[in-house]
Amino acid sequence: MSHSTLAEIAKADFKPAAPLVDRELNPHALIAKYAVRGRIPTMAEQLKGTLQSDPDALPFDKIIAANIGNPQQLDQKPITFYRQVLALIEYPDLLKNENVTKIFPHDAIDRANEIMENLVSVGAYSHSKGVLYFRKTVARYIEDRDDHPADPDDIYLTAGASSAVNYLLSLLSNGPETGFLIPIPQYPLYTASLALNNATVLPYYLNEEEKWSISAADIQKVVAKAKEDGVKPRSIVLINPGNPTGSILTAEGIAEIINVAAEHGLVIIADEVYQENVYEGEFVSVKKVLRDLQKIDSVKYADVQLASLHSTSKGMIGECGQRGGYMELIGFQESVLAQILKLASISLCPPVVGQALVSLMVNPPHESHPSHGPFRSEKLGIFNALKERSHKLYLAFNKMEGISCQEPQGAMYCFPQLTLSEKAKAAAAEAGMAPDEFYCAKLLENTGICTVPGSGFGQVPGTWHLRTTFLAPGTEWIDDWAKFHEKFMKEYDN
Amino acid sequence: MSHSTLAEIAKADFKPAAPLVDRELNPHALIAKYAVRGRIPTMAEQLKGTLQSDPDALPFDKIIAANIGNPQQLDQKPITFYRQVLALIEYPDLLKNENVTKIFPHDAIDRANEIMENLVSVGAYSHSKGVLYFRKTVARYIEDRDDHPADPDDIYLTAGASSAVNYLLSLLSNGPETGFLIPIPQYPLYTASLALNNATVLPYYLNEEEKWSISAADIQKVVAKAKEDGVKPRSIVLINPGNPTGSILTAEGIAEIINVAAEHGLVIIADEVYQENVYEGEFVSVKKVLRDLQKIDSVKYADVQLASLHSTSKGMIGECGQRGGYMELIGFQESVLAQILKLASISLCPPVVGQALVSLMVNPPHESHPSHGPFRSEKLGIFNALKERSHKLYLAFNKMEGISCQEPQGAMYCFPQLTLSEKAKAAAAEAGMAPDEFYCAKLLENTGICTVPGSGFGQVPGTWHLRTTFLAPGTEWIDDWAKFHEKFMKEYDN
Repeated sequence: MSHSTLAEIAKADFKPAAPLVDRELNPHALIAKYAVRGRIPTMAEQLKGTLQSDPDALPFDKIIAANIGNPQQLDQKPITFYRQVLALIEYPDLLKNENVTKIFPHDAIDRANEIMENLVSVGAYSHSKGVLYFRKTVARYIEDRDDHPADPDDIYLTAGASSAVNYLLSLLSNGPETGFLIPIPQYPLYTASLALNNATVLPYYLNEEEKWSISAADIQKVVAKAKEDGVKPRSIVLINPGNPTGSILTAEGIAEIINVAAEHGLVIIADEVYQENVYEGEFVSVKKVLRDLQKIDSVKYADVQLASLHSTSKGMIGECGQRGGYMELIGFQESVLAQILKLASISLCPPVVGQALVSLMVNPPHESHPSHGPFRSEKLGIFNALKERSHKLYLAFNKMEGISCQEPQGAMYCFPQLTLSEKAKAAAAEAGMAPDEFYCAKLLENTGICTVPGSGFGQVPGTWHLRTTFLAPGTEWIDDWAKFHEKFMKEYDN
Repeated sequence: MSHSTLAEIAKADFKPAAPLVDRELNPHALIAKYAVRGRIPTMAEQLKGTLQSDPDALPFDKIIAANIGNPQQLDQKPITFYRQVLALIEYPDLLKNENVTKIFPHDAIDRANEIMENLVSVGAYSHSKGVLYFRKTVARYIEDRDDHPADPDDIYLTAGASSAVNYLLSLLSNGPETGFLIPIPQYPLYTASLALNNATVLPYYLNEEEKWSISAADIQKVVAKAKEDGVKPRSIVLINPGNPTGSILTAEGIAEIINVAAEHGLVIIADEVYQENVYEGEFVSVKKVLRDLQKIDSVKYADVQLASLHSTSKGMIGECGQRGGYMELIGFQESVLAQILKLASISLCPPVVGQALVSLMVNPPHESHPSHGPFRSEKLGIFNALKERSHKLYLAFNKMEGISCQEPQGAMYCFPQLTLSEKAKAAAAEAGMAPDEFYCAKLLENTGICTVPGSGFGQVPGTWHLRTTFLAPGTEWIDDWAKFHEKFMKEYDN
């Protein structure tokens, strides 16, 4: 240890080195892309700044953040019962306060007490898989949902579904010879994480004309082609209900994909975070279909490996900022599970309040209890508004010239296709943008509506789309969009 | 989409593939190690299960989890003011409730109101860098601490410090030719994350005899040797106060390391999560020393790149499960910052409640407000207990035959050196363990005290250590340890 002063130390004679520049960084990180917070959302942030300094500077008075599924940013209210219980476990001294019953309903108090009997503190690291009590409630939920047993030991609580995706893709990636079947269009977390992990994306295209459905035959072709190219298909990602497509898979559709997975040993990553956002048809989990198939043929389906993901960020709960989620792991070898647990351990544990929220999400107030009524009506209110707006937006798109949109069955998004004129494409090229990005930029500049170009999710080459949520309250913004669109089409008429 | 039934689909004729085994996984993930939740803690979990089914089965009645710095698991109480504010922002309807003033002090209510004026909801995704209001409070704290300006734009809120480490190491790693100077012993997150990122660890040894100090001359040698070997040193990690060593760096010691970093363009990663756990001497931040040096020579130190990390998990706050933290980034090029922001965006945002807790940690109740008194006495109570136990444990170790321990100046750990007999080493080899692991296993089996062998942190080859926290309440366990040690030394006397 030195006995010199700072002034003496600063006299040392050396030539300082230049700082790092981006091209010296991890090349896999450099190529990762995440459009949901990309160029258009960045433009929106700048416009927001403009509006803050001069509210009259732009042809609109606020930014509508339709780029990201973030319900509570767009005025969706949190569900009261959940927040009551979370407040009580954040400050458990309340449970002993004589005034607590004046403020909280008794079932919220009871639930908080039950949690605190099973939890040392929300401020302590939990087990890396999460608190056992919470995992038990998740297992019960899955049993009720699927009518098949679920084991708390198979449940890993996570910081949202994103963190589960990161663990899984990191662990399953073994260089560019490992391939992951990813739907196109997809949620860009998948391609970003695979870029980071230097694995190969094997795109399988969803069939837009048939409500963005999946063809098992197409998947077989992708697998065969990958093997020809020396890439070993390792995993297939299913997003159901679809993001950004809003499509929903049938049990039979899922079963055909399980056949492909069983034949080629593909780990199925079932991103089922929108399982409560179902407006048309019915959600069936991959786990349920797998267990049904195993009942029919216990040998053939014995070794199918499935990770199914859920989250507190979507559904009617919409608690993105709390970072709650879980994955259920089925069919993995112990040696693989040990590695997954190790990766989870390195991050110590998922946020404990988020864990509690997962448990609340899967275990709502009981019908006979006072919170049930308000809970039900809050949830239904959110559901009905989402369903109504999804339908209105779908109808509005299909009335706009040059836009076609599949009816959203689930999730929070429309992914309409844009047919743009040569003149619009030329203007886009001149602006240094792809045609869909150009359209999104113009939409933003004229209406304040912030969306994400289709290129951020992937699309059949030569087609152009955009993704918009239908979370923004009211329907005026839909009218504004229609007016903008008419003007745009006129301006860029060939 | 298929029109067949599941039974028909299950008739498909294919040979199912075998499931994955660990050797097919990401080889970099396979070699990553994280001993803090490794073999000994896993044994402890099993023993805990044994005690649950038969409380009399073992020579102790509970497991003392001294393997991990998890204060609230060991009965440390959360600080009331923090939890009151968190409860109010989890359930902001409380702020409008007529009974709220009967339960919460007015400064907790005021603080919660102030937060809610700057936050749409703890349930909404925030900006990827975190909520601007929270980042502003962090910047103010740093200004007060260092007596130098801090910019909220330089602050990135994170899910604990671990998540900051993961971003930084992932982005800075460019294959095995990129080297990271890591102190030995170290907190194993660093080597685990570098293993995952396939970068090269350049160990620099701390000087045990001199209170685990760092020698800048040693670091120069490590840099020179790496360059000879074709490895480009990219970054140096400083852990101050030290984990697992408990040592504290002086301003001059830091300045000499900054010289090395400036000369070789090393990014300094300053892990300063124990900055409030200081029992002897004084904590000086790397940022302060860097700014002081820049005042002396603004040219030579202009391009020093520093990431300094802090967390809500340690200190007297000890809120590990809330996953709050921040990093301050200084001196990086815009092109590099853009990449860091992109990585943060892919994970969407850090837990918002954890962000709020960071803001509370750096902005305690004002002296003139009602919460100040209780806040101060709670914090002091925790601090004094830690300081007292650290000293007792240190004294106890140095009374034990064959154990020597440096006096902990800070953090939450002792890292005593074990001198073990040949007979003990032979018994360890027979049990398939390293000598330090064997000692930790015997300690656990006999007393219930769970520690981590020195090998988990790194040590000079041929020396043996262990890490223990001094968080467990009371001092009886220290007496139990001394009794066990005497027995152990007798049993394995040569």
